[in-house]
Amino acid sequence: MQVTLAIDCMGGDFGPSVTLPAARQFLRDDPYASVLLVGRPDAIESEAKKLASEFSGRVRFVPATQVVEMHEAPATALRSKKDSSLRVAIDQVKTDQAHAAVSAGNTGALMAIARFVLKTLDGIDRPAIATILPALKGQTYVLDLGANVDCSAEHLLQFGIMGSMLVSALEHKERPTVGLLNIGEEAIKGNEVVKQAAELLRASGLNFYGNVEGDDIFKATTDVVVCDGFVGNVALKASEGVAQFMATTLREEFTLNWYAKVIAFLALPVLKHFKQRIDHRRYNGAALLGLRGVVFKSHGSADAFAFEHALRRAAEAARNQVVERIAERMTAHRAAEGVTP
Amino acid sequence: MQVTLAIDCMGGDFGPSVTLPAARQFLRDDPYASVLLVGRPDAIESEAKKLASEFSGRVRFVPATQVVEMHEAPATALRSKKDSSLRVAIDQVKTDQAHAAVSAGNTGALMAIARFVLKTLDGIDRPAIATILPALKGQTYVLDLGANVDCSAEHLLQFGIMGSMLVSALEHKERPTVGLLNIGEEAIKGNEVVKQAAELLRASGLNFYGNVEGDDIFKATTDVVVCDGFVGNVALKASEGVAQFMATTLREEFTLNWYAKVIAFLALPVLKHFKQRIDHRRYNGAALLGLRGVVFKSHGSADAFAFEHALRRAAEAARNQVVERIAERMTAHRAAEGVTP
Repeated sequence: MQVTLAIDCMGGDFGPSVTLPAARQFLRDDPYASVLLVGRPDAIESEAKKLASEFSGRVRFVPATQVVEMHEAPATALRSKKDSSLRVAIDQVKTDQAHAAVSAGNTGALMAIARFVLKTLDGIDRPAIATILPALKGQTYVLDLGANVDCSAEHLLQFGIMGSMLVSALEHKERPTVGLLNIGEEAIKGNEVVKQAAELLRASGLNFYGNVEGDDIFKATTDVVVCDGFVGNVALKASEGVAQFMATTLREEFTLNWYAKVIAFLALPVLKHFKQRIDHRRYNGAALLGLRGVVFKSHGSADAFAFEHALRRAAEAARNQVVERIAERMTAHRAAEGVTP
Repeated sequence: MQVTLAIDCMGGDFGPSVTLPAARQFLRDDPYASVLLVGRPDAIESEAKKLASEFSGRVRFVPATQVVEMHEAPATALRSKKDSSLRVAIDQVKTDQAHAAVSAGNTGALMAIARFVLKTLDGIDRPAIATILPALKGQTYVLDLGANVDCSAEHLLQFGIMGSMLVSALEHKERPTVGLLNIGEEAIKGNEVVKQAAELLRASGLNFYGNVEGDDIFKATTDVVVCDGFVGNVALKASEGVAQFMATTLREEFTLNWYAKVIAFLALPVLKHFKQRIDHRRYNGAALLGLRGVVFKSHGSADAFAFEHALRRAAEAARNQVVERIAERMTAHRAAEGVTP
């Protein structure tokens, strides 16, 4: 199916040096995809033209004069960067020039601008950020990852709906299981909001599994794990920290002395395959959910391989109408709640 | 320095088959330590007598007729298990028969009973659970890990005080650094409670570093990381999940085919040393802080090696007067706040 992505080519730690090669590979791998390459003319126009001739009719350069800095305050970016590559990319979705926008830029600014330009779907109080985390068998979609702190039970329910629809769109599962992140056997089980959210989720018609704990994320106990953005963000960062700690320790052990180095050389195919399996780059591409349009966020430090995965994921979400799925499910939810559209 | 530990020999998934061998090894390693072995006579008395003759004068058997089950509700255990090994072990601290109690039993029951029997220190609203997590260079003490959800800013400050004093007692650092767990560059930075806690910590006279993120735990950015028990518990469990995911994946890769198996055999010393470095058993032994007595919690699934580490840690904390340190610091804090004792 045809799909057009608007790519913020300036975003991320490496800008066009990552986004353009990723776009080229994406166009090669997906013959039905087109891209709008958004960025400063001096930075990307000539390369964009090369790509346009290589993939005739599938590439268009869209100029934007500004760039949102990685640590710029979202409010400032929203107010003063109306011609930024990030915003112009989202504008393409708003004006139906593209089916989805992808950026590796400033998360806060991306969320603020996407929300301002595209607006939220009816009934969605707060858009959320959902990412995929790897598990031994399968994977888990986790949201929210930091867009929302101090969530209410109703917000957690909405995350459950959005997460389910994202999985149905990307994984073609009709009834994804939803887990509610809680704490287990410790002194006090969960807080009030989580208890209420469990009741709402149980009554929602979603395939609600019940409470899950932090380690269930990496066991793929459920397809979706729902949590407050503060908790989700800490869990994500802590997990990244452990993974890095273990990978670095392993590397240190395999370079400790000549014996270890020889073994490392012999073990190269094994270690390489291990590295591939735990490679977080394949999971790059977080969805901004609850908006009237598809927006994906790549890790700021993504390389071309990782960024291409975000592009693929955005294309898949757009093709499988994640926005329409969420809108439909929210309409049903609100009808059940007695809200007239 | 002489120290006496009261050991709940019945607690944990494996009971006396773990706690007694651990006690023996502990007595061997620490010639100035004595133990009170608490448990059902039929389960431990004969073995306790053997230990008593092996370590003359350093071992005493203390009978308890009941056992708190691992999944028993804390309130039930508190009410109906007054002669449980868990409670009798804590009673030994209360009556000054022991300097510290150690149990691998039900966390919730341990906290409820310890709090009921020992009471909290002046000014401490809620006792907290602190554990040690490994980092590439050093380690990090994290609290709270699940005893308290929905914490106020003042609670987080108290955790900062308790954590600092624990590190000063166990690591002999006079001014441990304290980090406040927060979320970083995402859409909204932190929640209201965390913002207020940062102000309190800044004004506290503790060596406050500022905000840290989830990955800082495994970088040992600060000696202590303070957070709400819900967040801490999720971060801990998620971290365990990642570690298990990576370890299992690595094991799978090294058994995938004959080449991998041969390499695994050759790599044995390297992999073994790696395993030792990431061995969570060495970090076993979480402190229940804020009580008028030293209580340590071992992982329920601990083996003798892990349980002995909890014993060692409890002995070290008692010898270095962690309770007195916290009490003193709280008195100073309250005096500064204008509270007369």
